Amino acid sequence: MKVIETLKQQLVESFGDQVITLAHGSGGKAMQQLIDQVILPFFGKPSDSPLEDQARLPLPQSGRLCMTTDSYVVTPIRFPGSSIGHLAINGTVNDLAVSGAQPLYLSCGLIIEEGLAFAELIEILADMAVAAQVADVRIVTGDTKVVDRGSCDKLFINTAGIGVLEVGLDSGITHIKIGDKILINGDIGDHGVAILAARGELALETTITSDCAALTSLIQLLLSEGIPIHAMRDVTRGGLATVLNEYAQGAGVGILIDEGQIPIKPEVRGVCEVLGLDPLYLANEGKVALVIPADSAEQALQLMRTHPAGMNSAMVAEVVADHRERVVMQSDFGGKRVVDMLVGEQLPRIC
Amino acid sequence: MKVIETLKQQLVESFGDQVITLAHGSGGKAMQQLIDQVILPFFGKPSDSPLEDQARLPLPQSGRLCMTTDSYVVTPIRFPGSSIGHLAINGTVNDLAVSGAQPLYLSCGLIIEEGLAFAELIEILADMAVAAQVADVRIVTGDTKVVDRGSCDKLFINTAGIGVLEVGLDSGITHIKIGDKILINGDIGDHGVAILAARGELALETTITSDCAALTSLIQLLLSEGIPIHAMRDVTRGGLATVLNEYAQGAGVGILIDEGQIPIKPEVRGVCEVLGLDPLYLANEGKVALVIPADSAEQALQLMRTHPAGMNSAMVAEVVADHRERVVMQSDFGGKRVVDMLVGEQLPRIC
Repeated sequence: MKVIETLKQQLVESFGDQVITLAHGSGGKAMQQLIDQVILPFFGKPSDSPLEDQARLPLPQSGRLCMTTDSYVVTPIRFPGSSIGHLAINGTVNDLAVSGAQPLYLSCGLIIEEGLAFAELIEILADMAVAAQVADVRIVTGDTKVVDRGSCDKLFINTAGIGVLEVGLDSGITHIKIGDKILINGDIGDHGVAILAARGELALETTITSDCAALTSLIQLLLSEGIPIHAMRDVTRGGLATVLNEYAQGAGVGILIDEGQIPIKPEVRGVCEVLGLDPLYLANEGKVALVIPADSAEQALQLMRTHPAGMNSAMVAEVVADHRERVVMQSDFGGKRVVDMLVGEQLPRIC
Repeated sequence: MKVIETLKQQLVESFGDQVITLAHGSGGKAMQQLIDQVILPFFGKPSDSPLEDQARLPLPQSGRLCMTTDSYVVTPIRFPGSSIGHLAINGTVNDLAVSGAQPLYLSCGLIIEEGLAFAELIEILADMAVAAQVADVRIVTGDTKVVDRGSCDKLFINTAGIGVLEVGLDSGITHIKIGDKILINGDIGDHGVAILAARGELALETTITSDCAALTSLIQLLLSEGIPIHAMRDVTRGGLATVLNEYAQGAGVGILIDEGQIPIKPEVRGVCEVLGLDPLYLANEGKVALVIPADSAEQALQLMRTHPAGMNSAMVAEVVADHRERVVMQSDFGGKRVVDMLVGEQLPRIC
C-alpha cells in the first residue's frame, strides 16, 4: 500500500496540472505515454516481454473457469469511503466470489471524458491498485478510450474477471430448499446513502461511508469450514429486496423476512424516513445474502461474525412453502407486507 | 443467421416503439425484462440453470489462457458495412487471434444512454449475435447499465475475451529478426473512411465499407500450415504506421516500408488526398500485420491470398538493421521519409 501511495504522490507531482485530451485515446504517442507512465505503474507490467494487447496466463490445474463482467458508471466518481476505482475491483471480484470461485485475473477498460484531470485519474487508478492488492487479484490486461467532452460523464470503468471454481462446488438458486435460512453479513444501505450524500443535491449530512469491500475471504472461510451454501448472491443494485425476489422466483419458494433482524444503522434508517426511501432497495457493495440449510445456519452466523467483513452478520429470512415466488416481510408488530421487486429506478448510477 | 434475422424482426415488432429508460438499468423489473426478453434471446441462456451473474465454463484441457478487453465508443453506432456491435465482437476476437489463441468466450458490458430506441439496440444486438456466430465464440456473461441522457453517447460496449493458446506457440515483438518480412492481409484505411463518411460532416460520398471482420481463421490457416510467425498485431486505431512503430521500438530494429506495395483502394487514397489524411494512420478493423521470416514469407503470402479475408494480401515492409527503432518509407520514386508514431488525434472515436 505504501508503495502505491508513494507512486501516487510522484505521479500527481509530475502530471497533476494536466488534463486528458483526445490525443490520449488516439493509439499514438500521447496514449502510449499515458499507459506507460500513469496506468501501468499501478497495474504492473509483464517483466519479461513488451506489453501486448492480451495477457497470457497459466491455466489452473483443475476446476472450472468462472467469468463475469460489470461496467461502473457511478456518480460522483469519488464518495465517502470509496470510489469508482474500488468499486470496479470489488464489484467484479464479488461476482466471482459469490459463485464460490477464487478470483484470479481482471481486465480493465477505461472510458475517459476529454478534460478529466490527471490528478483525479491517478487517484482512481491508485484506488484500483490498492483494492486489487487487498482482494488478491491481478489486473492483467486493459484498454483506454477517450471520448469528446459531453460524450461520457468523467470516467466509466469496465472490469471483467476470471476465477477458478473447484469441481463439485456448486451452489445456485435451484439448490434452495424449504426451511433454509438466509444470512447477510452486516448493515444494509450504507453504499446507497453514501452516494446520495456525496451528490450534494439533498443537503444531506451524514457520517455514513460506502461498505465497498471484497467478499472473497469471508466466503472462502465458510467454504473451508465445510458450511454447505445452497445459494449466494452479492447484494448490490436493487438491494436486498431484489436478491430475495430473485431467490423466490428462481427457486419457486416463498421467503419470509423478519424485519427485526435486518441490520441497519439508525442513521441510514433516518435518511430513508426523511427521503421516503425503502432501505430494502438501497444498494450495497460489500454484502452477500447466503442461503444455508437450517442445521448449519447458526454455525455459519458465528463464523461470519469472526470475520472483519461479517461482524454485524444476521439471520434475516427463512425459505418457506407459503406464498411461493413471493417475498413477505413480517414486521416487529406482527403485520405482514409483500416486498415486491423494484419497479422503476430508485437511485440511478449507484454503481 | 436466419434465426437471428427472424428474432430481430419479432423483437422490433414487439418493442420497436419503446425507448430505454433509467428503469432499464435499475436492477429491478424493467431491467429483468430487458435482459430476459431482448438481450438473452440473442446471446443464449444456459439451459440447465437460472441465469447467474457469472458464467461457469469448462477448463481447456491444455495450453495457456489468453485474456483481453476493449471498450467500443465508435460514433455513429452504425456505419457502412458494420456497426458498434460487429466491432465489439470482432475487435476483441482479433486481439485474441493475433496472439495465436483460439478465442472461446466473450463477456459483454453495455452502457446505454437513456432514450436510446429499442429498435437501434435490437439491431446492434443482432449484429453481435451474427458476428459471434461467424467468429465461433460464445457470449457467456454480461452487464447492462443505463445512464441519464447526456451522460454517454447512445451506446458504449465493452467486451472482454478469453482464448486458449497452445503451449509452445509463442510469437511476440521480441521474436522479430533482421531480414523478416512484414505482410498485411489487404487494403488499408477502409474502416476509417467508412466512419468519416458516415458522420456526414464532410459531405463525403463514398462506396467504401468498413473492413470489420474476424481474423481467427486466416491466422489459424497460417499456423496449421506451419508458417513461423515472429510477431502479429491487428492494425486498428493509429493504423499501420502505429503497429510498425511498435514493432521497431519494441524489437529495437529498423523497418523499411515499400510504398508501392501498400494495398489501398484508389477511392481511399482520393479521400485522404482531399482531406489531408495519411492512410498509414487510418484505422482498420479486419487487418493484421504479420512478421514472417524471409524464407517463409512468399509461402505465407500465397496462403493468405487463398483466404476470403486475405485476397489482397501484400508484402509491404522489411525488418532492417539500419535506422533502428524507426520506420522509414521508400517511395515509388526512390525518396525516403520517416513514418513517425501518430502525434495527437487524427480521427477520434473510430472504434
